[in-house]
Amino acid sequence: MMKRIFIELQERSYFVYIAHGILKDTKFRWKLKKGDVAVLITDIQVAPLYLKRICNTLNSFGVITDRLVLPVGEQSKSLSVLDQIFTKLLNKNYDRNIVLIALGGGVIGDLTGFAAATYHRGIRLIQVPTTLLAQVDASVGGKTGINHVLGKNMIGAFYQPVEVIIDLDCLFTLSMKEFSAGLAEVIKYAVAFDASFFNWLENNLDDLLKFHPQSLMYCVYRCCKLKASIVSLDEREIQIGKRSLLNLGHTYGHAIESYFSYTGWSHGEAISVGIVMAVNAALHLQKFLSTRDAMRIKLLLERAHLPVHGPQEMQSKDYLRYMARDKKSRLGKINLVLPVSIGRARVFLNIDQNVILNSIEYNLIK
Amino acid sequence: MMKRIFIELQERSYFVYIAHGILKDTKFRWKLKKGDVAVLITDIQVAPLYLKRICNTLNSFGVITDRLVLPVGEQSKSLSVLDQIFTKLLNKNYDRNIVLIALGGGVIGDLTGFAAATYHRGIRLIQVPTTLLAQVDASVGGKTGINHVLGKNMIGAFYQPVEVIIDLDCLFTLSMKEFSAGLAEVIKYAVAFDASFFNWLENNLDDLLKFHPQSLMYCVYRCCKLKASIVSLDEREIQIGKRSLLNLGHTYGHAIESYFSYTGWSHGEAISVGIVMAVNAALHLQKFLSTRDAMRIKLLLERAHLPVHGPQEMQSKDYLRYMARDKKSRLGKINLVLPVSIGRARVFLNIDQNVILNSIEYNLIK
Repeated sequence: MMKRIFIELQERSYFVYIAHGILKDTKFRWKLKKGDVAVLITDIQVAPLYLKRICNTLNSFGVITDRLVLPVGEQSKSLSVLDQIFTKLLNKNYDRNIVLIALGGGVIGDLTGFAAATYHRGIRLIQVPTTLLAQVDASVGGKTGINHVLGKNMIGAFYQPVEVIIDLDCLFTLSMKEFSAGLAEVIKYAVAFDASFFNWLENNLDDLLKFHPQSLMYCVYRCCKLKASIVSLDEREIQIGKRSLLNLGHTYGHAIESYFSYTGWSHGEAISVGIVMAVNAALHLQKFLSTRDAMRIKLLLERAHLPVHGPQEMQSKDYLRYMARDKKSRLGKINLVLPVSIGRARVFLNIDQNVILNSIEYNLIK
Repeated sequence: MMKRIFIELQERSYFVYIAHGILKDTKFRWKLKKGDVAVLITDIQVAPLYLKRICNTLNSFGVITDRLVLPVGEQSKSLSVLDQIFTKLLNKNYDRNIVLIALGGGVIGDLTGFAAATYHRGIRLIQVPTTLLAQVDASVGGKTGINHVLGKNMIGAFYQPVEVIIDLDCLFTLSMKEFSAGLAEVIKYAVAFDASFFNWLENNLDDLLKFHPQSLMYCVYRCCKLKASIVSLDEREIQIGKRSLLNLGHTYGHAIESYFSYTGWSHGEAISVGIVMAVNAALHLQKFLSTRDAMRIKLLLERAHLPVHGPQEMQSKDYLRYMARDKKSRLGKINLVLPVSIGRARVFLNIDQNVILNSIEYNLIK
């Protein structure tokens, strides 16, 4: 069974297709036509699993394929790897009619997306996310970009793909650690936007952790559906509004990732801790969030095998240094997305430093 | 007297303001408000002329200013100088509410524009073009980008400024060589779109070359007006249509610039030769262009002190190598914009190599 979600963005609208085995499905019609040149960009971990199969499928449609296989990891989201992509494309004399296919997790998606946004001032892009994290979050909505030594995702563009193809079978090849990292974003959606989905997660998490196909479909579909409605409202995250609520836990999380130069802690793990700290801050501010809801959130993260305590190496002041540099902050003042109840979050502007320090140091959730 | 042109692009619409002395005018209201942070990006040649004055004016409105002064020349349109800009902005912890002001010629405009398009996934941009070339062409329409060792303007984005401020007094500080380079683009507009403007140029070129204020105003206004109507029709140059006609002479011209690694020949000089070669190709193809019109075009370029013969160092086959890499070409086939009469041009697809070689080798214009 295949599900389809429409991302409504005027002339930049597109579909997200979700199914088990879609990459093997020779009947599925990619948004490519005979004679198109498609360059698949992937990493050495993903390449042996899917690259050959996809190329064969596309070739059978008369699409000419080429490929670039990059190293694994957040370090690839750099200006120098971006330049490597440009050099490859220019060496082959590829014009602006080619299509880039991002085959991989969030790193490949963000990097390839930014390359597509800027090669010849913009070429077509297809996202084929292979991790849970990329399927539920990174591949939909058009955020692309790279890191800078001085901060994560500081350079980038809003650039929409022409389609997103999600094969749920890819999830079977993930390690439990990678799968859990994706669950952090899943739980984030539920906490920030959807109480009934949170309930569903409480009831179905064990099935998800056993990779139960229907549960995976429901989970990914629901997240993409939520993301679709948010992105349609605010494509470029211009208002401090609904789209910024997607950043729940991310301001703390990015601080952790930056501190370890994007190596020690995965994005999902850092976000999990970030959500707990945001819950703490909400409790400190006594902004509606009940201790019961706080406990339910923490418990769900733990059940998903996610960390709920920050790295021991980091002092609370280490967080502040990076948090002030966050894209949501303004003139050094820190703004945060905090949950006010399960299923509802809000942006709080210009938060007192002591509240932030406390939210990091003292875990109020018993 | 000030003239104003509206660039109609839905929510990305903006005004182009043209006047003598607008940068000195403390009554002119920039699209900035008290408390805004504006970072002026310019080069060492332009900085001593205008930087201090503009900063003072903006400070008097309560705008906080900062600056980055870069080396002069096309070499600054590189990934490494772009990275320098990002490092400067991130070191100051600037958030996405700052404004970049591009103060300079086409190089500064393209580079700063691309930095604005990609810093924090897009921040506000004001173009303040100081050369004739940038005033009539580069600053309006949202093309931004940098060069790659393998080709000019290969990396970039379509990104509109929030306003363009053109001070015609800046033209008085240009060398005749720089001024002439701008006239190549002016003549291009007339040849490709506007026969009556071509007549006007024939009658008023001497006044322009004497920097006659009213003539300058008319010339810059007419070019910007033409550009505005073209850009509104086709913001992202998606159709092979009117916007691509702006590239008359550019496919040949870029080949010359690339051959000399953007050092020996200026953009305007290369475009002038490119227009002559396009005229030659049109004559070879016997596509309507009369030899009389061909002669008038060549004569006007000569009167503007522009070259009409390509560099002696280059063989005709040297051109082909670079021309196949042009953004307008597809799968190695060369498409060209050619004049069909004065005031009218067309895109010709998949042009025979011999025609191109002949257009370079044999000057048909007596």
